Amino acid sequence: MNACIAAVVRRSEVRGLKSVGILRGFEGLVGGSAMQLDAHSVSGIAGRGGTILETSRDGSLKARLEVGALGRMFAAVGIDALIVLGGGGSISAARGISDAGLPVIAVPCTIDNDIAGTDYTIGFDSACNRVIAAANDIADTAESLGGRIFLIETLGGESGHIAISSAYAIGADAVLVPEIKPDLPVLCGRLKAEMDAGKTYVVIVVAEGAGPAPNLIEPIAELVGRRVRVTALGHAQRGGPPTYWDRKMARAFGERAVDLLIDGECDAMTALAGGVLTETPMSVPVSTKKPLDEKTYELINTGAKLKAGG
Amino acid sequence: MNACIAAVVRRSEVRGLKSVGILRGFEGLVGGSAMQLDAHSVSGIAGRGGTILETSRDGSLKARLEVGALGRMFAAVGIDALIVLGGGGSISAARGISDAGLPVIAVPCTIDNDIAGTDYTIGFDSACNRVIAAANDIADTAESLGGRIFLIETLGGESGHIAISSAYAIGADAVLVPEIKPDLPVLCGRLKAEMDAGKTYVVIVVAEGAGPAPNLIEPIAELVGRRVRVTALGHAQRGGPPTYWDRKMARAFGERAVDLLIDGECDAMTALAGGVLTETPMSVPVSTKKPLDEKTYELINTGAKLKAGG
Amino acid sequence: MNACIAAVVRRSEVRGLKSVGILRGFEGLVGGSAMQLDAHSVSGIAGRGGTILETSRDGSLKARLEVGALGRMFAAVGIDALIVLGGGGSISAARGISDAGLPVIAVPCTIDNDIAGTDYTIGFDSACNRVIAAANDIADTAESLGGRIFLIETLGGESGHIAISSAYAIGADAVLVPEIKPDLPVLCGRLKAEMDAGKTYVVIVVAEGAGPAPNLIEPIAELVGRRVRVTALGHAQRGGPPTYWDRKMARAFGERAVDLLIDGECDAMTALAGGVLTETPMSVPVSTKKPLDEKTYELINTGAKLKAGG
Amino acid sequence: MNACIAAVVRRSEVRGLKSVGILRGFEGLVGGSAMQLDAHSVSGIAGRGGTILETSRDGSLKARLEVGALGRMFAAVGIDALIVLGGGGSISAARGISDAGLPVIAVPCTIDNDIAGTDYTIGFDSACNRVIAAANDIADTAESLGGRIFLIETLGGESGHIAISSAYAIGADAVLVPEIKPDLPVLCGRLKAEMDAGKTYVVIVVAEGAGPAPNLIEPIAELVGRRVRVTALGHAQRGGPPTYWDRKMARAFGERAVDLLIDGECDAMTALAGGVLTETPMSVPVSTKKPLDEKTYELINTGAKLKAGG
Repeated sequence: MNACIAAVVRRSEVRGLKSVGILRGFEGLVGGSAMQLDAHSVSGIAGRGGTILETSRDGSLKARLEVGALGRMFAAVGIDALIVLGGGGSISAARGISDAGLPVIAVPCTIDNDIAGTDYTIGFDSACNRVIAAANDIADTAESLGGRIFLIETLGGESGHIAISSAYAIGADAVLVPEIKPDLPVLCGRLKAEMDAGKTYVVIVVAEGAGPAPNLIEPIAELVGRRVRVTALGHAQRGGPPTYWDRKMARAFGERAVDLLIDGECDAMTALAGGVLTETPMSVPVSTKKPLDEKTYELINTGAKLKAGG
Repeated sequence: MNACIAAVVRRSEVRGLKSVGILRGFEGLVGGSAMQLDAHSVSGIAGRGGTILETSRDGSLKARLEVGALGRMFAAVGIDALIVLGGGGSISAARGISDAGLPVIAVPCTIDNDIAGTDYTIGFDSACNRVIAAANDIADTAESLGGRIFLIETLGGESGHIAISSAYAIGADAVLVPEIKPDLPVLCGRLKAEMDAGKTYVVIVVAEGAGPAPNLIEPIAELVGRRVRVTALGHAQRGGPPTYWDRKMARAFGERAVDLLIDGECDAMTALAGGVLTETPMSVPVSTKKPLDEKTYELINTGAKLKAGG
Repeated sequence: MNACIAAVVRRSEVRGLKSVGILRGFEGLVGGSAMQLDAHSVSGIAGRGGTILETSRDGSLKARLEVGALGRMFAAVGIDALIVLGGGGSISAARGISDAGLPVIAVPCTIDNDIAGTDYTIGFDSACNRVIAAANDIADTAESLGGRIFLIETLGGESGHIAISSAYAIGADAVLVPEIKPDLPVLCGRLKAEMDAGKTYVVIVVAEGAGPAPNLIEPIAELVGRRVRVTALGHAQRGGPPTYWDRKMARAFGERAVDLLIDGECDAMTALAGGVLTETPMSVPVSTKKPLDEKTYELINTGAKLKAGG
Repeated sequence: MNACIAAVVRRSEVRGLKSVGILRGFEGLVGGSAMQLDAHSVSGIAGRGGTILETSRDGSLKARLEVGALGRMFAAVGIDALIVLGGGGSISAARGISDAGLPVIAVPCTIDNDIAGTDYTIGFDSACNRVIAAANDIADTAESLGGRIFLIETLGGESGHIAISSAYAIGADAVLVPEIKPDLPVLCGRLKAEMDAGKTYVVIVVAEGAGPAPNLIEPIAELVGRRVRVTALGHAQRGGPPTYWDRKMARAFGERAVDLLIDGECDAMTALAGGVLTETPMSVPVSTKKPLDEKTYELINTGAKLKAGG
């Protein structure tokens, strides 16, 4: 997010606007808590995880924003228009502000990549790279230990996008997501057969919402007949310096958001679609659920490595 | 490349084919040096930098492949079709094999991302992330040291794609590429003005072909009137474990290559176009030069942070 | 371990000896499974996690080594003397071989640093750095989320050395180890008081043997009255490239082991003592339990940050 | 340094003292520029590279501190005693303050590890790990490219400690340091012989003061008859999150410094000696030059891998 904040502030300066950072999201908007931002104050932040503006600790605020009071809030923190960085809840709240007639642009920022209307949300690439790193570390010694099952639990809340995408990239043997109830006996039967046939170890990516992974240790160990070890990325998956792809997208989305406001747009979300930087009406992410990549889910979970795939 | 090799081997097994790895590229093809590959032999390699098949040390071989002898070579290493992983030179050689009537699919593998017909070549994301890492490390202490100019020299041979893309992502103050002759006095004049106005430090990304960076120390130091320090990534930029994006694309390209061969394609290069996995005739990369992203080059080098941008 | 293997092989060559690598530890010794090693075969392995020689999958073998048969095993794999790389179990088995009159040197290799007679065991620094990385990632966003408790579960088996050392380095608010039963109500009472007084988040390092961490979520959440999140490093903590300190010690221990054998030592373990490279009779690690650093444990767990320390 | 600042502040609180951070080193002391520090203000900084207190940009200030004015400066920033974090120059200046009768404790903080009286200076482990990372990245593809010479240029100013220590750890084939003039023809003769005998690539670590590495490309390429590539870590070597070892030592030194002041010490530097945390009179680092590890230098540069070593 810091990289996106920096991009917004710098682009605003270039285009002759001033930037104010609202602290702790909608909490700061309600409470009038804000800070002036300029190129100097955002210098060096782009490479840091987290956000200098902090995040709201009171999620319910988003829902309780009173339309009538919004104009006064804008005046209180001294702004004419708002750029909202956040996930589904924040974008819904942004929509509410837009409905009240105030100019607002949303930038999809969530590691979960679960926002409809855009192929990408800022943070996703960094989060997936954490799964890659864990998989690499496990691979270093897994082969020689032999005969084990490794569960990697990712974040992702109630969505399985991170889990499926990263499971595909690392060539995981299975992936469990909250959206699809797995047939554990069938899945474990396949893994057992593969291990009996000589496969030395197996990696299963478990989305947060399909876990917690420790609860899966016993059933899987019993069904496959091998020891199960868990690596749970937990909150650590949110941190760390953003990757090239995230910094590129953060800058592109941030600059686009400023340009959209200047061009008079007041109800759009920046988006990546078909590899192209664009925008979409906020109604799309608010009213639509992003479909899961079920084809890749199937590819991974039907053991495409041993059976004929599509 | 290892991740792509693993994907090819696994997909081949799934689809009922056997894989043979040709060692040291065309050198191995000429010399009949090859190894059987199966799921077991590629286990655990995907997360490692470099390639288990090594690379040719005799670049001239690509040009000297005799059409007449190619059929015998295929027979010698026991193959019916070839998947070539490599950059421009390798793809040209692959084209030659295809012209000789032998089935061959190319997979664009080069950190330089300088192959026409595809938006992406395997290795590029990992290479750009090395620039991000260097920029982060420099930023940690650059602010407090103050008043310095940091040059980051990237690889990229005679192309500036890595330099421009990573310079954009890190918000570099300037970028120098071999394709465009910079007006150093004008550029340095702008940087001097920015530093005189309070900017504490400046980062310039220098593509290999626009360097070597050490030669730029003196002229830039003189024109801007500040100390210049160089970080040259050198050969280290080629190594390290591949990123999420590279592993995802390596798997996608590798599987696609196998599927294309089975579908009877024999003269294509796997490609990413508009965010979609596809293929392109090999004539495209062979006969076309990929255009540089001049718009981004301009955005970075005209000091868009201080002046009104487009 | 790879770095140590490389050092042994290279030093042996320098001193005119040949090296044979026994595969899968004592399993390979019993089964006569070995490979010739020279400078070429160990080229490039030192920076890789894991071990090219793999590890034994049958722990019981160590205990069942028959003294009578040992001489025949040495002959079978063609060796005159043995260098054993491993933890407590392996060193005990090495002692058995030494008791049988065969020359053997032990090198303490375990991430747990729980071997008496040496201040250091190879792998410990790399393992502790994984805790640092997780703590950094958590810190990136923990502050802004606020009011949470983060558990980081480390490896370490039944020993708490990794947990205490890394908890000290990251300034954790508490550490739980298997050797000492914590007074959870007292501990949580202190953490609650600190959080009520404004501390935004709390980090507790949990050694494997004091966990599993997920079992601690409920009691801690209840006692402190805040949400608890777990990051479990799991098997990933064993992998990854070794650090500077581990590579330095691996080389120093490996070279020392060869020199000791040549000097006629046949019952020693390489050791670090008071910052000095040395050796100790194998009876020390076999018969002594390494004491826990209880002083540091107390420093961390008595909330030294708020109360007057020693 | 941040980790050490945090340790000082926390320990001070525990022991009932208040902390003030002097900004930009002696520059802030002279100018009266300081900030109040407490546990809250140092929360989360320990894992970040660089220093929140910034560093002096005017090195000459250290030498120009007027003894008479020091008492007034202490009063101006509101302090009774001073803890100085820095390298040789800073410790000399600290000595001057001590000579003026004011209580001051020095903590050796420099990546160069060139301070007499202590085996360790904060930052050294992190800096050496950067060399390891570069060496790993180079190793990934060096083998397959074949026949090349890789120079890794480290920082270290006029001292070769980083270069020798990291060259030892990575098993470099040679190391060049400013303290010892190399016999390049002899050195290159050995490397040529090794490469002619089958060694596929060679790594030479070049200390900053023995470089710049680019100037060595031509002579080495000519003498060995192979291509030479440079990786120059440059300023990036100073940044990045501190390692386990650095954070442990930063905490230990920081806490020790506070304890020493409270115990009435007023002219000491914290030190590590023989693996033990201790202190030394400031006269030691000020008047003594730390000896280079010439034995290790010889071990590396006499090609110990091929010839019989000591």
